Amino acid sequence: MVQGIANWNTGQTQEWLQQYVDDWVAFYRKHTSDGEVASYIPVLQQADPDDLGISIIGKSGMTVRSGDTEIPFTLQSISKVISFIVACMERGVSYMLNRVDVEPSGEAFNSIMHLEMHQVEKPFNPLINAGAITVSSILPGKTSDHRLEPIYLLLEQILGYRPELNVEVYESERDSSMRNRAIGYYLLETGFLESDLNVTLETYFKQCSIEVTIDDLARIGMVLANDGMDTKTGEEIIPRQIARIAKVLMLTCGMYDASGKFATYVGIPAKSGVSGGIVAAVPPRVREETMPFTDGCGIGVYGPALGDKGNSIAGIRLLRHIANQWDFSIF
Amino acid sequence: MVQGIANWNTGQTQEWLQQYVDDWVAFYRKHTSDGEVASYIPVLQQADPDDLGISIIGKSGMTVRSGDTEIPFTLQSISKVISFIVACMERGVSYMLNRVDVEPSGEAFNSIMHLEMHQVEKPFNPLINAGAITVSSILPGKTSDHRLEPIYLLLEQILGYRPELNVEVYESERDSSMRNRAIGYYLLETGFLESDLNVTLETYFKQCSIEVTIDDLARIGMVLANDGMDTKTGEEIIPRQIARIAKVLMLTCGMYDASGKFATYVGIPAKSGVSGGIVAAVPPRVREETMPFTDGCGIGVYGPALGDKGNSIAGIRLLRHIANQWDFSIF
Amino acid sequence: MVQGIANWNTGQTQEWLQQYVDDWVAFYRKHTSDGEVASYIPVLQQADPDDLGISIIGKSGMTVRSGDTEIPFTLQSISKVISFIVACMERGVSYMLNRVDVEPSGEAFNSIMHLEMHQVEKPFNPLINAGAITVSSILPGKTSDHRLEPIYLLLEQILGYRPELNVEVYESERDSSMRNRAIGYYLLETGFLESDLNVTLETYFKQCSIEVTIDDLARIGMVLANDGMDTKTGEEIIPRQIARIAKVLMLTCGMYDASGKFATYVGIPAKSGVSGGIVAAVPPRVREETMPFTDGCGIGVYGPALGDKGNSIAGIRLLRHIANQWDFSIF
Amino acid sequence: MVQGIANWNTGQTQEWLQQYVDDWVAFYRKHTSDGEVASYIPVLQQADPDDLGISIIGKSGMTVRSGDTEIPFTLQSISKVISFIVACMERGVSYMLNRVDVEPSGEAFNSIMHLEMHQVEKPFNPLINAGAITVSSILPGKTSDHRLEPIYLLLEQILGYRPELNVEVYESERDSSMRNRAIGYYLLETGFLESDLNVTLETYFKQCSIEVTIDDLARIGMVLANDGMDTKTGEEIIPRQIARIAKVLMLTCGMYDASGKFATYVGIPAKSGVSGGIVAAVPPRVREETMPFTDGCGIGVYGPALGDKGNSIAGIRLLRHIANQWDFSIF
Repeated sequence: MVQGIANWNTGQTQEWLQQYVDDWVAFYRKHTSDGEVASYIPVLQQADPDDLGISIIGKSGMTVRSGDTEIPFTLQSISKVISFIVACMERGVSYMLNRVDVEPSGEAFNSIMHLEMHQVEKPFNPLINAGAITVSSILPGKTSDHRLEPIYLLLEQILGYRPELNVEVYESERDSSMRNRAIGYYLLETGFLESDLNVTLETYFKQCSIEVTIDDLARIGMVLANDGMDTKTGEEIIPRQIARIAKVLMLTCGMYDASGKFATYVGIPAKSGVSGGIVAAVPPRVREETMPFTDGCGIGVYGPALGDKGNSIAGIRLLRHIANQWDFSIF
Repeated sequence: MVQGIANWNTGQTQEWLQQYVDDWVAFYRKHTSDGEVASYIPVLQQADPDDLGISIIGKSGMTVRSGDTEIPFTLQSISKVISFIVACMERGVSYMLNRVDVEPSGEAFNSIMHLEMHQVEKPFNPLINAGAITVSSILPGKTSDHRLEPIYLLLEQILGYRPELNVEVYESERDSSMRNRAIGYYLLETGFLESDLNVTLETYFKQCSIEVTIDDLARIGMVLANDGMDTKTGEEIIPRQIARIAKVLMLTCGMYDASGKFATYVGIPAKSGVSGGIVAAVPPRVREETMPFTDGCGIGVYGPALGDKGNSIAGIRLLRHIANQWDFSIF
Repeated sequence: MVQGIANWNTGQTQEWLQQYVDDWVAFYRKHTSDGEVASYIPVLQQADPDDLGISIIGKSGMTVRSGDTEIPFTLQSISKVISFIVACMERGVSYMLNRVDVEPSGEAFNSIMHLEMHQVEKPFNPLINAGAITVSSILPGKTSDHRLEPIYLLLEQILGYRPELNVEVYESERDSSMRNRAIGYYLLETGFLESDLNVTLETYFKQCSIEVTIDDLARIGMVLANDGMDTKTGEEIIPRQIARIAKVLMLTCGMYDASGKFATYVGIPAKSGVSGGIVAAVPPRVREETMPFTDGCGIGVYGPALGDKGNSIAGIRLLRHIANQWDFSIF
Repeated sequence: MVQGIANWNTGQTQEWLQQYVDDWVAFYRKHTSDGEVASYIPVLQQADPDDLGISIIGKSGMTVRSGDTEIPFTLQSISKVISFIVACMERGVSYMLNRVDVEPSGEAFNSIMHLEMHQVEKPFNPLINAGAITVSSILPGKTSDHRLEPIYLLLEQILGYRPELNVEVYESERDSSMRNRAIGYYLLETGFLESDLNVTLETYFKQCSIEVTIDDLARIGMVLANDGMDTKTGEEIIPRQIARIAKVLMLTCGMYDASGKFATYVGIPAKSGVSGGIVAAVPPRVREETMPFTDGCGIGVYGPALGDKGNSIAGIRLLRHIANQWDFSIF
């Protein structure tokens, strides 16, 4: 490893880190051919499967970016974390935890079966579709735009700009996602939904279609890593308790059916989406002093070629490599 | 909170901490009446439901103990962590991860259904019974005593003494645990078992019946918190990678069907057993300086009155309280 | 039993039979209090739980009717048999059997779980909702009224008049049946539906809402008992093969989760609906000569108080009694 | 079809029928190559996959036999019908129906999942393994030989000789059937078993290993077709109610996961075993006078090459052909 570096957490080491990350991105880009671009929403298929990019932002603001860093993509399932945070902020944590459980499900993210089989009192967790749609139904507001407003406001506070809806993706989701409508009607029948189903699904499809970049994801990850506080001002953007719960859910349920393996091999809270994005939050660690980003960092990854569990295949391998090299695990 | 304490991690603060913990144990002891002693093994029913005790051992050796600290109890499911660690040490991590997955299951710990329903290639994780019995079949040795030997040796290295088998509990388990035999034969048919079923079950029942105290659990937790190293000598007792995986599994699957809630509300790797024991590993944290045990600690809890998910009901609440007060969460 | 009757199958014995049936209806009417009127569609709750009526029509035309014989009610699930028959007539038997299986499911009639769990290639059978909705999607016609036309025509041919839609029930079903919409979207996603979902569900809800009387059901049952032929003219109304398959499905899957028990205790092909109707088809039997209706008969029952499996509670007990008295079992 | 035959049910027509059946067996023997001999018990693999034989015995005693008629084979799952009948005779029908349900399960015959998933109060039916093992536990007698005695006695009464145990098959089953032991221990834990598990499994494996021929099966089928009465003496061998229930179960659950399709395409109560045997009971029918065996008949088939559902592949097709030609359907 790189030697003679007194303190990794300063800007002066950035170029050293940059070299490593460039190498690793170049190496793992070859792995994109092991995956395939998502096909369940037609418009997602237009992504370039060879793309791979990463952005790492430390508490000090030090940023290492490499690969395809400028490509916008939609949040997809990553939005589930944001909407759950916003719902907790709007409605209170205990209100939300009474309506959505926080247990890993062991079933596919789009399963209806586990709801029926277990005769559950509430969806298993807010990161499976049944839970996320329930969350979207609890967001206050009569229209989907009203419900999305606090999501946009939170993102604007974190990102410094107001992200936009990718209308084409939204319309593609809205028109093609029959399984989510099936889940929605099931939830409606069981009484889990708190508001009109159409508005709820519109909200859900829109939140999935918000467009971001890996820098945006890295900033979101950094705020979560920093327990919800702005890294510069120390201001609370997300209440600490809510930021913590979000990280727990990301660790236990964030990577679909591979969440346990991701926790085992990478060991950091992260959430992926079928667009190929991954957001990760690395909390401050007490580790060997020669490691970078010990004050915590946020990571954004984009790599639309997905593995069989629906996560960016090269993105996961890249994260695993970096996490092992720099000892990012929270365990 | 307690003020004017420059450094919580010294012996001189121990009496301050002791006061708090005594208060909390007294308070949560009343909660034991919300639970019930395990009934599935007859001999476990003899435990006193009012018992509650805790032992916390820091990296420096500072120890805070309170309540019923001297009562011996059997490891039960806590042994699943130990046997998985030992199997990884004996067989190698990749060998083991090819035979047992590391995903939360969303099903009851003693479920056979999920094996059949998902036509799994391997049990979901080593902390459900199907996974633990598979692990017991992989431990080297022709007899159960041979297989248990490295478990005893590891425990002896951590505890400083060789714990003993509670023969009465063992015989009670062996003779009454029909569900585990059902699981065993199912695993035998699917080809998951690597050795004779009777020896495997004997091994499994024996490892569950090893007798410990809360101090023992706290020591085990401390070694895990310290990434497998002896806190005094720095010697590697458990390889770091294996200690980390053990902590991941404890966090994601350690508290039966309440693992997600425990991670959310407490946020530390822990494993419970139906005897009422809980072992927890608190890794070093970067937190406010006024907090104790920032170098990490191990915790042992005993409280045989169980909640409906099979975890010590007062024990969980006590842990939650302490973790929140002292900011133990790894997130 | 009644004695001295040379030939039960003549009109002259009708008054003897009438006496018996009147007694039995009076007796089993008391059993209505063991059940409850269906609540899942609001308008069905308006039915009088004390109602009980039966109509038995023999091949010769001999009719025995008793109890509440004039009350109109909607077909509900009984329509599944009719629409399957019509779809087979319109599309061919092998076409249909490629799209819907004929296996009992062991799950609730409105289960989605079994579709997901078994990753089925087609719904288990046309008498569960998933199968029936699939059948409704296969009926030819661009609008629901076009699709219903051959159903009305078949019913008109059997009943001698064109039954009517109960608009209030239809609208109630359409607006309240969220589970069926969930099933519909699930089927849409899996590619089982052959046509527009809204038209399909409209068709399904309308077919369920066709209003009949017990005499109508008895006539339908008689035509099925007579292998699809008009009892007077011998004309083929339903092809024999299709009539036979309908009877098989009624026997194996016709009474929801109690189909096996109904086959065991009663032993005749029958289909119930949540409105409280039951249609039964008693094929000609070779039995002791002193039994009535050995040439076969059709039976219509109405009793809106349902047991816990969704079948008319008094209706089933009445049918069981009659079937045992008159040896109606096909086994 | 054959013409000019006044009465099919006489010996004089036997040679006409023989010609047909010989042709059909020759034709369907080619279909044996579409299947495979059972492999789950090693000794069953020794069967010759090309074998195919059928025996049809009418009420009058008229017998038509063709193909490989002399090969002995073991009852396997066919024994489930016999043991259920015997248990009903020994314990009473209502006692048995309180302990085993009579509903088709929709799951594989050797499923444990459905027991756990549905938290059933009793196994779904006596023809799945869980139900059959429960039945074996209810048979009176402290040893397996005591329990088998009434089974042997019933068979002796029907067959005219006492069949023998195939010890090699029995030992092979006993030593290799891990799934059945898994089921057994599951049943033991849930409290469904009424007696010692080892004796129960021994009984079950032995009943499966009783050796018969197709003539034997045809005789068993004939007695069931005749409502339990000896065709010559009219003596009751099996009470009528029990014979009827057996036929219901055979029709609804007798052909594993293909029971519904068999009922649809063939329409007669039948039970298959993995050894390749099928017993069928054709009750008396009111059908066109030119059909043979209208007084009912019993059929035994042997064809060890199995289809993917575990039934004799050529045997089922042969039965379907004959049933359609001679209109055997009970519907």
